Amino acid sequence: MSKVRFDISLSLDGFMAGPDQSVDNPIGVGGMAVFEWMFPLAAFQAVQGREGGEVNASTPVLEERFADAGAYIMGRNMFGGGHGPWPDDPPWNGWWGIDPPYHAPVFVLTHHAREPQPMEGGTTFTFVTDGIESALEQARATAGDRDVVVGGGAATVRQYLAAGHVDELNVSLAPVLLGSGERPFDDLPDMQLEQVRAVEAPGVTHLRYRVVR
Amino acid sequence: MSKVRFDISLSLDGFMAGPDQSVDNPIGVGGMAVFEWMFPLAAFQAVQGREGGEVNASTPVLEERFADAGAYIMGRNMFGGGHGPWPDDPPWNGWWGIDPPYHAPVFVLTHHAREPQPMEGGTTFTFVTDGIESALEQARATAGDRDVVVGGGAATVRQYLAAGHVDELNVSLAPVLLGSGERPFDDLPDMQLEQVRAVEAPGVTHLRYRVVR
Repeated sequence: MSKVRFDISLSLDGFMAGPDQSVDNPIGVGGMAVFEWMFPLAAFQAVQGREGGEVNASTPVLEERFADAGAYIMGRNMFGGGHGPWPDDPPWNGWWGIDPPYHAPVFVLTHHAREPQPMEGGTTFTFVTDGIESALEQARATAGDRDVVVGGGAATVRQYLAAGHVDELNVSLAPVLLGSGERPFDDLPDMQLEQVRAVEAPGVTHLRYRVVR
Repeated sequence: MSKVRFDISLSLDGFMAGPDQSVDNPIGVGGMAVFEWMFPLAAFQAVQGREGGEVNASTPVLEERFADAGAYIMGRNMFGGGHGPWPDDPPWNGWWGIDPPYHAPVFVLTHHAREPQPMEGGTTFTFVTDGIESALEQARATAGDRDVVVGGGAATVRQYLAAGHVDELNVSLAPVLLGSGERPFDDLPDMQLEQVRAVEAPGVTHLRYRVVR
């Protein structure tokens, strides 16, 4: 059964990204610290087309996220600026390199119309200029029975939460205090959550909540 | 080995208490929701001198907290106003009734000097007017090998964190969005944390972090 979810990494003080977040630095100053649990994992390296890496209690959590994702939605900043994130990636017009880790349709919220951009490995970036409902409708249509994942950033997560579109929240809570930055849970209408599970893993706890309707 | 710790309940959006927190309502509007995991527990009822209640995965966490606590420090608001919190408690000058759940020395940070107040069940409230260092020194002296627990509220937790006195953070994360209120982790100096454990329990996840020095 398809649902709308997000999978975010959050600092203990509630930030998804550090301060001075921008299209050139979508995770903000110091924001990389909330993802430190993820980078060493073999399951993460694999979606980048790389070999090696660690296997630990985060592995099944991350594998499940990728396996259940039928389509992604992301904000313009998260789509990125003028180069890839990895030192040995060739320059390319987006953060994610020529073979992005999504391997699925990605709908990018933007004010600037642009042709769809198919990438290597099954990722296609489709640029949506007519709002979050339109992006959701398109993502649902392509996701089939798999999930629509609201990938970020914080403003995009907040918009979908506020509009009542999110069924499931996956929060990987990192033992980090960022001090300032982007908070996904600010200024939301009242909503009721139910804790579904908590998975303890090295340097992170993976929490899952369901929105009660 | 005695350490300085705090045990707080926190909403998913990072609040220890709701808005409009005061001496008459130290948990603020809606703040009770972050403690909902605790009230039904037999281990919580027991420290109130009551019988019955539930046993679940939170039980050993709560029992350990009480067992390891040698002395408490709390802010003036948390000490409370003119009545006890329980409907059948007699009115008393403090939140906690005539037999408070601490059963240990409690040091209350205040600007108003007052004689120590021994209560039933081993709790003594001592009022400290010369600052957080003095309260810590007095608490350490009475705690012996057991822990000094910074009980709250958010401002008191933040003061001890900022001053570098806290060794261990226990955070019971509740599946609740409060929207506004008191945040314990705002405006702190840089500090490095290590995740020690995460315990999944009904309606809450109990996280423990160590301050890395």
